[in-house]
Amino acid sequence: MLDRIRFVLVATSHPGNIGACARAMKNMGLSDLALVAPARFPDPEASARAAGAEDLLAAARVHATLADAVADRAFVVATSARRRSLDWPTLTPRLLGERIAALPADARIAVVFGPERIGLSNEELALAGACVEIPAAPEYSSLNLGAAVAVLAYECRIAASARADGLVDAAPPVDADASPAATHAELESYYARLEPALARSGFLDPANPRHLMRRIRRLYARAAPDRDELNILQGMLNALTQHGEPSEPSTPAGAPERR
Amino acid sequence: MLDRIRFVLVATSHPGNIGACARAMKNMGLSDLALVAPARFPDPEASARAAGAEDLLAAARVHATLADAVADRAFVVATSARRRSLDWPTLTPRLLGERIAALPADARIAVVFGPERIGLSNEELALAGACVEIPAAPEYSSLNLGAAVAVLAYECRIAASARADGLVDAAPPVDADASPAATHAELESYYARLEPALARSGFLDPANPRHLMRRIRRLYARAAPDRDELNILQGMLNALTQHGEPSEPSTPAGAPERR
Repeated sequence: MLDRIRFVLVATSHPGNIGACARAMKNMGLSDLALVAPARFPDPEASARAAGAEDLLAAARVHATLADAVADRAFVVATSARRRSLDWPTLTPRLLGERIAALPADARIAVVFGPERIGLSNEELALAGACVEIPAAPEYSSLNLGAAVAVLAYECRIAASARADGLVDAAPPVDADASPAATHAELESYYARLEPALARSGFLDPANPRHLMRRIRRLYARAAPDRDELNILQGMLNALTQHGEPSEPSTPAGAPERR
Repeated sequence: MLDRIRFVLVATSHPGNIGACARAMKNMGLSDLALVAPARFPDPEASARAAGAEDLLAAARVHATLADAVADRAFVVATSARRRSLDWPTLTPRLLGERIAALPADARIAVVFGPERIGLSNEELALAGACVEIPAAPEYSSLNLGAAVAVLAYECRIAASARADGLVDAAPPVDADASPAATHAELESYYARLEPALARSGFLDPANPRHLMRRIRRLYARAAPDRDELNILQGMLNALTQHGEPSEPSTPAGAPERR
């Protein structure tokens, strides 16, 4: 289970924090570290703070965007920023571990950490199917990045042990005939066709498309469709856009109208 | 509950770690930090890493010995070193939180962290009633001090919330007539009289007294006697040492002999 979990650090300012995160991950048996546009990396400070976990730094992939870093993931969880314009389903760290443990054995997971101080943007949050919030004292809730990684890595390890010990409801065994979970990139290619179709239909205001697309992304990220289901969504979109404009904006596309 | 928990850092080498620990404590609502013989403190690096938790550093008391730092505590828990000559009762971080939440509302607690790399000595471990061990990957189990503090502070907060929400069996209400828990210092004053008495009796080898005293300390630390019970122990010791030497080494002092 731990091999399927990637920790993604977005726009980290201090290379020492990257090293501390690598160490905390390795302590808990995690090894997949990805960096999105780090301010300084590689850096001697990162290596020094990594102590015995330099191997994670050496293997870390650096990406230009968060979407790239999670493209092959089926379940993306964001550590919560304080300000949000939408309510994401929010997990405690413990529930996150339990949720991951209950996923099918082939589901690949990303846990995403925003930049120090400012956290993830709403655009970045929109890539996630859920948020996780580490409980903290309201008077002083700004955790050091390494401390946040330490707590979530610890809960992942606890959940993995519980699963190994049979203490968690085992995820259903992977059926060879079952459709694999759709990846983030596959969903994005659907949205890339959905958005202009919605704009053409008048349902989406091209001057301000982002709020609606965020809600849609969030809905599907939460639902975590498999590839067959995504094919159905794409097929519906094709059918509706080829056979004339979709119905009125206020009517869900494809829903039978009641008269 | 969080107000009654002191975190004690023993012989910390790097002042930056002290700052990181203060921050992680304050994030979780803990405020009582004690330092035993830190290598460098106060230090600008500690203040920098503390970020918004400099108040904990300013209020931190510096002690010469661990015994001083825990003298007023009723329940002392040590983070485990790897090598130990005795088996301490070992808790997981989660069980530690639950154990603390179940203590009487007036019990004062210390959680003790050893020096980076080497951990606590057996003499220091002997002051503790229990050990806590953070689960880690066997290949790389050396946690950064700040990460260890973050995980245990987090579990303390979770347990405090569960207690506040009534999810933990509430500790029995403090009975005004009940005897308070004996403090560490009160137990030590008992051991200070017990050890020479045992040496005089021949039961304890003065050339190598430490192993036996460690076992005895551990027994009572686990039992956590209240003051009345400690008075009984002291009274027994007085009685036995005044009315002639205690009986044969192989017979427990005070136990009636069977004939």
